[in-house]
Amino acid sequence: MEAVDHLAEERNRAEFDVEEMKIVWAGSRKEFEVSDRMARLVASDPVFRKDNRGILGRKELFKNTLRKVAYAWKRIIELRLSEEEASKLRFFVDEPAFTDLHWGMFVPAIKGQGTDEQQQKWLPLAYKMQIIGCYAQTELGHGSNVQGLETTATFDHETDEFVIHSPTLTSSKWWPGGLGKISTHAVVYARLVIDGKEHGVHGFIVQLRSLDDHLPLPGITVGDIGMKFGNGANNTVDNGVLRFDHVRIPREQMLQRVLQVTREGKCVESNVPRQLIYGTMVYVRQIIVADASRALSRAVCIATRYSAVRRQFGSQDGGVETQVIDYKTQQSRLFPLLASAYAFRFVGEWLKWLYTDVHACTAGLKSLTTSVTADAIEECRKLCGGHGYLFASGLPELFAVYAPAPTFEGDNIVLLLQVARFLMKTVSQLPSGKKPVGTTAYMGRAEHLLQCRCNVQKAEDWLNPSVVLEVFEARAARMSVARAQNLSKFANPEEGFAELSPVLVEAAVAHCQLIVVSKFFEKLQQDIPGKGVKQQLQVLCYIYALNILHKHLGDFIATGCISAKQASLANDLLRSLYSKVRPNAIALVDAFNYTDHFLGSILGRYDGNVYPKLYEEAWKDPLNDSVVPDGYQEYIRPLLKQQLRNARL
Amino acid sequence: MEAVDHLAEERNRAEFDVEEMKIVWAGSRKEFEVSDRMARLVASDPVFRKDNRGILGRKELFKNTLRKVAYAWKRIIELRLSEEEASKLRFFVDEPAFTDLHWGMFVPAIKGQGTDEQQQKWLPLAYKMQIIGCYAQTELGHGSNVQGLETTATFDHETDEFVIHSPTLTSSKWWPGGLGKISTHAVVYARLVIDGKEHGVHGFIVQLRSLDDHLPLPGITVGDIGMKFGNGANNTVDNGVLRFDHVRIPREQMLQRVLQVTREGKCVESNVPRQLIYGTMVYVRQIIVADASRALSRAVCIATRYSAVRRQFGSQDGGVETQVIDYKTQQSRLFPLLASAYAFRFVGEWLKWLYTDVHACTAGLKSLTTSVTADAIEECRKLCGGHGYLFASGLPELFAVYAPAPTFEGDNIVLLLQVARFLMKTVSQLPSGKKPVGTTAYMGRAEHLLQCRCNVQKAEDWLNPSVVLEVFEARAARMSVARAQNLSKFANPEEGFAELSPVLVEAAVAHCQLIVVSKFFEKLQQDIPGKGVKQQLQVLCYIYALNILHKHLGDFIATGCISAKQASLANDLLRSLYSKVRPNAIALVDAFNYTDHFLGSILGRYDGNVYPKLYEEAWKDPLNDSVVPDGYQEYIRPLLKQQLRNARL
Repeated sequence: MEAVDHLAEERNRAEFDVEEMKIVWAGSRKEFEVSDRMARLVASDPVFRKDNRGILGRKELFKNTLRKVAYAWKRIIELRLSEEEASKLRFFVDEPAFTDLHWGMFVPAIKGQGTDEQQQKWLPLAYKMQIIGCYAQTELGHGSNVQGLETTATFDHETDEFVIHSPTLTSSKWWPGGLGKISTHAVVYARLVIDGKEHGVHGFIVQLRSLDDHLPLPGITVGDIGMKFGNGANNTVDNGVLRFDHVRIPREQMLQRVLQVTREGKCVESNVPRQLIYGTMVYVRQIIVADASRALSRAVCIATRYSAVRRQFGSQDGGVETQVIDYKTQQSRLFPLLASAYAFRFVGEWLKWLYTDVHACTAGLKSLTTSVTADAIEECRKLCGGHGYLFASGLPELFAVYAPAPTFEGDNIVLLLQVARFLMKTVSQLPSGKKPVGTTAYMGRAEHLLQCRCNVQKAEDWLNPSVVLEVFEARAARMSVARAQNLSKFANPEEGFAELSPVLVEAAVAHCQLIVVSKFFEKLQQDIPGKGVKQQLQVLCYIYALNILHKHLGDFIATGCISAKQASLANDLLRSLYSKVRPNAIALVDAFNYTDHFLGSILGRYDGNVYPKLYEEAWKDPLNDSVVPDGYQEYIRPLLKQQLRNARL
Repeated sequence: MEAVDHLAEERNRAEFDVEEMKIVWAGSRKEFEVSDRMARLVASDPVFRKDNRGILGRKELFKNTLRKVAYAWKRIIELRLSEEEASKLRFFVDEPAFTDLHWGMFVPAIKGQGTDEQQQKWLPLAYKMQIIGCYAQTELGHGSNVQGLETTATFDHETDEFVIHSPTLTSSKWWPGGLGKISTHAVVYARLVIDGKEHGVHGFIVQLRSLDDHLPLPGITVGDIGMKFGNGANNTVDNGVLRFDHVRIPREQMLQRVLQVTREGKCVESNVPRQLIYGTMVYVRQIIVADASRALSRAVCIATRYSAVRRQFGSQDGGVETQVIDYKTQQSRLFPLLASAYAFRFVGEWLKWLYTDVHACTAGLKSLTTSVTADAIEECRKLCGGHGYLFASGLPELFAVYAPAPTFEGDNIVLLLQVARFLMKTVSQLPSGKKPVGTTAYMGRAEHLLQCRCNVQKAEDWLNPSVVLEVFEARAARMSVARAQNLSKFANPEEGFAELSPVLVEAAVAHCQLIVVSKFFEKLQQDIPGKGVKQQLQVLCYIYALNILHKHLGDFIATGCISAKQASLANDLLRSLYSKVRPNAIALVDAFNYTDHFLGSILGRYDGNVYPKLYEEAWKDPLNDSVVPDGYQEYIRPLLKQQLRNARL
């Protein structure tokens, strides 16, 4: 990419075919090709520059995003891009915008919950962006508990309309992205009320703003909820607040694929499977798992490259210092994250094809991957030392953008408790002889797993998929069964569940980690071409698993799955695996195929030319516009020139 | 503080004297009184408002800080505040500024490393702010490794001067706060060169800017290094870049308390103890430990109050939902952090009086407390759910301000490795019969600790300081001794140390956690007046210790210090301790005595009146200045009104 490659030596040391690994990472040659083309298209267009986001005030920042969105749309039309290409292009523009909600939530909600007629009416308008929509579910006082929403949609027999209303302050819609200043329409979730009787929470298409002058329609109060975490970050999005004062919509604007309200105000349930209600949610959580590996890989790419550039200590007498990536402490923090990026990529790929226990799986994996990723981005920032704290490193911004992921679309703890509930139910059904399927199939071998003993006697014995898998299965099964036994001691099961919830969450995590490990091993059973590619993935897979074993040692030893000695052997092996990754580290992050534009990090530059560029970038800060700063005359000069008399200092 | 107290019921449930706890937290009645008075002074003065920091562009933000600093100084003079009062006032202004470095690093460096004459010359100027100074140590290419600094100070025999020079790009001073736009002087660290021979790194007082017009002096290039993490956060500080082109200073401006250069260019070491060089560093790290408990307690205060206000789930049929603080998952995450805030407060207090092994101790505790605190602030944000992501929650800003702490003033991993080295040395000296003292005194009982067995048989048995302490001592001792044994297998000890560094870090953490636990128990042996105060602290102390035991279960069980059964009993006890804290939680954070101004969080308001204030605050965002946003005409309207013809979508 650049004339001088400061990391060329690192790249020459790689022991595998990085071009083939790019295909594995992308998912297929086709996906690689589209991604690569769209990424270059965005990176080469100056309109999409993003290095100035940190210094813009809120209004400039927001307007700048509108400009980029309009321009991206113009390019999509001009180049006649397909839906897949358009979606990739938006992804590489890498600026959170109201369009994320329009395409990612509004359109899927109508697709999933609208009848055929509703889809025919609304989708073409949305596809052409003749209307812009958002997804208005959460309220000021209500997030995770959808059934606790307060907004009402009351059927009016006379006019054949629903009256949408916000009865309290806490019922104000709060958070929906794109709502604050841009959306013309929203899918609004509200309690359906007919003749004073409640019929659960449903979605309604409500127009918010005039298509002529963009002013809010009568009865609608709408605005932005203010600044969020970070400099630019998600402040490019108009997360909004919305209140309804008896706003009327035609009956046809209730999304009624599952439940229909007739002209007479009768509720008629369709024979569409109930699970379809969760369709949007499950779909969105799949996307979130895929996004986790993208965000994680991006942070890891920055930290890995910079760790090869940065030198510190290790030389006496002014010789060249040691690259920080050669320190074992750095490797033991960085390489498990690199392994996790690949692990999450493969589990996300698998999730797309999941049919059984899809709800528990997406919930658990959403929780696991977003928590790990958010922490990992921050860990990568720390691995970059002081310079990681600069906006120019890209990591603060990546973190601020990613930070809400563990909370949005299902708080991670709430989701893990759902997984735990599913696990407890599975355990309780074991005596009946009902064989568990899907990701809990291993529970069918509970009898064996509760008593099996690990046979590892030397470090290399750990290099066996069935050994590692059995240990992970045994740990997950034993934790679930032990929790179930403790639960059974409570007279009231719900009280017991509440009381034991902190340890139930741990059992859920163990189950989810097992899924990720097993899907990684499954991936390795596929035919993977390219010199050394599969070998690298094998090393990463063992690092992923054995690092979890080390971090959660208490689980594995306390349940008797492994001995302290076996744990110590696993840790010895882990150390030797880090040495195997070391020469391939730069190539393994190159395989993500991220452009410098997308990475948005001086520390993570492809060419490793970090210091001159950091130095250059510094002078662009507005504070450097003048040598003597604004404020010197008023506030600093008087300080320096004062004559102190009556101070006690 | 407010007319209606939404948390009054919570406060009525407290089982201890919160006013007495405030004294314990503050350290003494006197300190409480000064803090309280200064906090109110700042909170009641509109000049010190800080809620608008997130929306300001860089230049406005910076100028606003200069204004506050000048005003704070004016008030300090007018009110004839003492040094202690002035320092508290600056603390409660709660805006990072160049003055932090002037008072916290420049002045202490001259005090610690300057001769008496140098102190007499420079300190009065600094105290009166007739000069403003910063501390220029780190360079673009050099952070942790001070001996690797490249800036040179070459003695010129002819003119009796030092020539300060930046020979390379990577030698540019980089990061010093206050340097970029404000400081007139700096203590610059450079390699002393006399007649071509190097004599280590020393500090030199260098004037950077003219006291007349504030322009950089000849040979000096200086500027700001650009935006950092967060909205306002540390962007109120002008962290700077500085290059010297053969800048000359008189010989007398080398700080020469330890090493003096004579007129003839001879180096003369003084008989001042060498450790004094580290005086500033140790002093600064003590401050950092104290600051950690402040930042942590602040985040915990916000999360605890909001957890009592926030309700979610738990009711059928529209009844009142459950306060989220009543969920065990919330308690198991929040209460250990509350306990840590108190634990860090007490260990920080103790650190001030430390004489033995002070270097290893401050290094280890700096590392432990800053890592835990940074993670805890982010955990508190997550505990506040979605609203924690709003700037108005105060938590994003607190995190962004705090984020550099694990890296600055000694990278935490580097510091833990220093502790590990100290521990390995201690273990290696055991056979010689030399009794370890200070915080490693317990190693003197290594023989016993390596074989002792924990006698806990029921949960309550854990409620015994000597039981808990012995388990923590045994774990720390066994981890150190095991690492030492592994080290001895390497032919080259340095290679062994590098290879085993990841697990050596774990041994260092175990040692530091033991220190915190033991200092908490020591605190409880003091006379602590006030109804129920000591009881509350006892509960928190056990929570602190037993939570660590749970999180690091692998250490405790793998080393055979406790059995799986005993660990499970400890966890049962932990659960019951959470129930004991629950009614006191709000009062325990009230005891921090933070004003709403200082907390800077709508979620953490004293009166719990969260939702109306969040709603009110939202409308202040600049995006809400107009109903139709700037950019609509150019970018949104054309989108909505377009006639699509040739698109493929």
